[in-house]
Amino acid sequence: MADQDARNGEDKRPTEIPALRWEEPPEGPVLLLLDQTRLPAEEVELVCTDAPALVEAIRSLAVRGAPLLGIAGAYGVALAAARGFDVAEAAEALAGARPTAVNLAGGVRRAQTAHQGALARTGDTRLAAAAALDAARALHREDTEASARMAAHGLALLDELLPAGGHRVLTHCNTGSLVSGGEGTAFAVALAAHRAGRLRRLWVDETRPLLQGARLTAYEAARNDMPYTLLTDNAAGSLFAAGEVDAVLIGADRIAADGSVANKVGSYPLAVLARYHHVPFIVVAPVTTVDPDTPDGASVEVEQRPGYEVTEVTAPQVPVTGAGGGIPVAPLGTQAYNPAFDLTPPELVTAIVTEEGAVSPVTAEALAELCARSRQVTIS
Amino acid sequence: MADQDARNGEDKRPTEIPALRWEEPPEGPVLLLLDQTRLPAEEVELVCTDAPALVEAIRSLAVRGAPLLGIAGAYGVALAAARGFDVAEAAEALAGARPTAVNLAGGVRRAQTAHQGALARTGDTRLAAAAALDAARALHREDTEASARMAAHGLALLDELLPAGGHRVLTHCNTGSLVSGGEGTAFAVALAAHRAGRLRRLWVDETRPLLQGARLTAYEAARNDMPYTLLTDNAAGSLFAAGEVDAVLIGADRIAADGSVANKVGSYPLAVLARYHHVPFIVVAPVTTVDPDTPDGASVEVEQRPGYEVTEVTAPQVPVTGAGGGIPVAPLGTQAYNPAFDLTPPELVTAIVTEEGAVSPVTAEALAELCARSRQVTIS
Repeated sequence: MADQDARNGEDKRPTEIPALRWEEPPEGPVLLLLDQTRLPAEEVELVCTDAPALVEAIRSLAVRGAPLLGIAGAYGVALAAARGFDVAEAAEALAGARPTAVNLAGGVRRAQTAHQGALARTGDTRLAAAAALDAARALHREDTEASARMAAHGLALLDELLPAGGHRVLTHCNTGSLVSGGEGTAFAVALAAHRAGRLRRLWVDETRPLLQGARLTAYEAARNDMPYTLLTDNAAGSLFAAGEVDAVLIGADRIAADGSVANKVGSYPLAVLARYHHVPFIVVAPVTTVDPDTPDGASVEVEQRPGYEVTEVTAPQVPVTGAGGGIPVAPLGTQAYNPAFDLTPPELVTAIVTEEGAVSPVTAEALAELCARSRQVTIS
Repeated sequence: MADQDARNGEDKRPTEIPALRWEEPPEGPVLLLLDQTRLPAEEVELVCTDAPALVEAIRSLAVRGAPLLGIAGAYGVALAAARGFDVAEAAEALAGARPTAVNLAGGVRRAQTAHQGALARTGDTRLAAAAALDAARALHREDTEASARMAAHGLALLDELLPAGGHRVLTHCNTGSLVSGGEGTAFAVALAAHRAGRLRRLWVDETRPLLQGARLTAYEAARNDMPYTLLTDNAAGSLFAAGEVDAVLIGADRIAADGSVANKVGSYPLAVLARYHHVPFIVVAPVTTVDPDTPDGASVEVEQRPGYEVTEVTAPQVPVTGAGGGIPVAPLGTQAYNPAFDLTPPELVTAIVTEEGAVSPVTAEALAELCARSRQVTIS
């Protein structure tokens, strides 16, 4: 079950509520999520006491972003275990809540494996639940560290590609602290550039249909006093043509073994524009986003979302009149094509930046080597 | 002054209210505009009794679209003349209401020239007013005819480029009967293909920030029983990648002498995508859209519109809380980059289709020849 816990009230300044946290009040453990569907108007936390509530929060995008979904999935398994629910059932429901993000299934699997291992070793469900929670916490901590290392590698790459400094970076969707245990992926690189005094402008794509750029990236940019400007996704072309974009920085929801990048719909057109204008197109994501079991872009299942996200306008204060909870802007009965993601082939990606370093040019071999290095580091 | 005249009431089926009409009730002549800002939810006519009301309607986009703006501008001059206002002052205000559309200034100038000529010849203000109205009506009639000829030329070109038939056409913004005295420009070509049984799918870009695609093109497509699907502008890339787009058809607000095309923001990224995917990119516009006084794309003044169109969400029923009359979706104080148009260079345009025929490849010489032919037709 999910409850709501409004934290902000009259104070309209952004606070430092984390995207996700685990708490253990006397009535039992809970997972608290900052409800991203209500940002930036309200900072409200959802209190999840079981896996179905978390599944619903994932589906509704109250919690989102590839790395954070992995962490949330792991905590979801820990929550089911701690509260005595069927762990296998919870894990299956959580892993399938969104099909494209590989991190979600990965995080679920990690906590579930820890749970199963402890249960097999000790036969004690309390110890098994503790093992699942440890696994979730370890993933959370690793993601925080990975974020810092991605930021450092990404900034070094930016500085190398753009020696003149004064970086003008275009980003799409939201890839900051709202998607991560740390400061995010692509956004963390822009933030590092800002802190180093080398970010001249962050161009923020609004990212239709759900406006993660306008609502979330602008919120994070404002919170960090970054020089940012919002634009409709289709205005990016004018910026490229005017020479106002030095680099594109985006995240990834899944990277196939050949380096194809599944990311928020609208990423691929940016990659084509960047190539046409000879602008570096840089993907920033943790190694866990690379899925060696997905050979190429064609093998990625792209989630198709409801048409009402396109045919209706929604905002926190909009009265509900349409089927999707918003106000219809298109004629009733209008059919919409609404893929959540698109695929960018490796030949359009200048570099993939991970916590283990950058891969450029992007090849299956270079990616495999990076992943192998990452596994060695984890094992050692 | 503008009044409102709701026509639709309970009946939610689309009616056949024209985008613009001139009437002469006993209390004096009026220009009636179908308020496009309220479509598709409501069909409401604005009643303009003077030029300032029309200027306001043009600025607020109640009336819009390059050819229709020319007709509206001409009727605006006729209205000022018929009602005894200062015609030169009205003409100046109307011509400057939106800077990018060359047709607006052209229509104003045509009615004003007719008015000045009749006044000089006869000294009679009533005859001069009648001459201005005749000029507006002639422009209106010519535009209707031009629309039909563009549709025929455009369909012939489509059939030539895509001999397999079953055309899947992507369009951007709104270019149908709401922008024209007839059935429009690019949309008229798609409609002709539909009537000929050769339109498999009309892909409709929603066209942020003002959603002319979702609100107006979908409305016109539904009204004509066309097979259409709506998408966010940034989902077009996935359609191209999947081979689901056979041609792009767009209109134009101004075409420079070198063939550079100023059109709704988002057109240029489509041109780049079309080139990358070897898909024809076809611009459909009357010859009056070609401006020989604008040498190239860099010479076109691109209108910058208010940031609140991006930072706020609006719909007819949305309660007003933001500065722009909508609900803020981005953090307060967010700055937005909001150009109304972008420029597509001639080398990315497969063909320009006019009522005088198609130009392909697009060169300054071919365009100049087409315009010269058009002038000969007008003179003869």
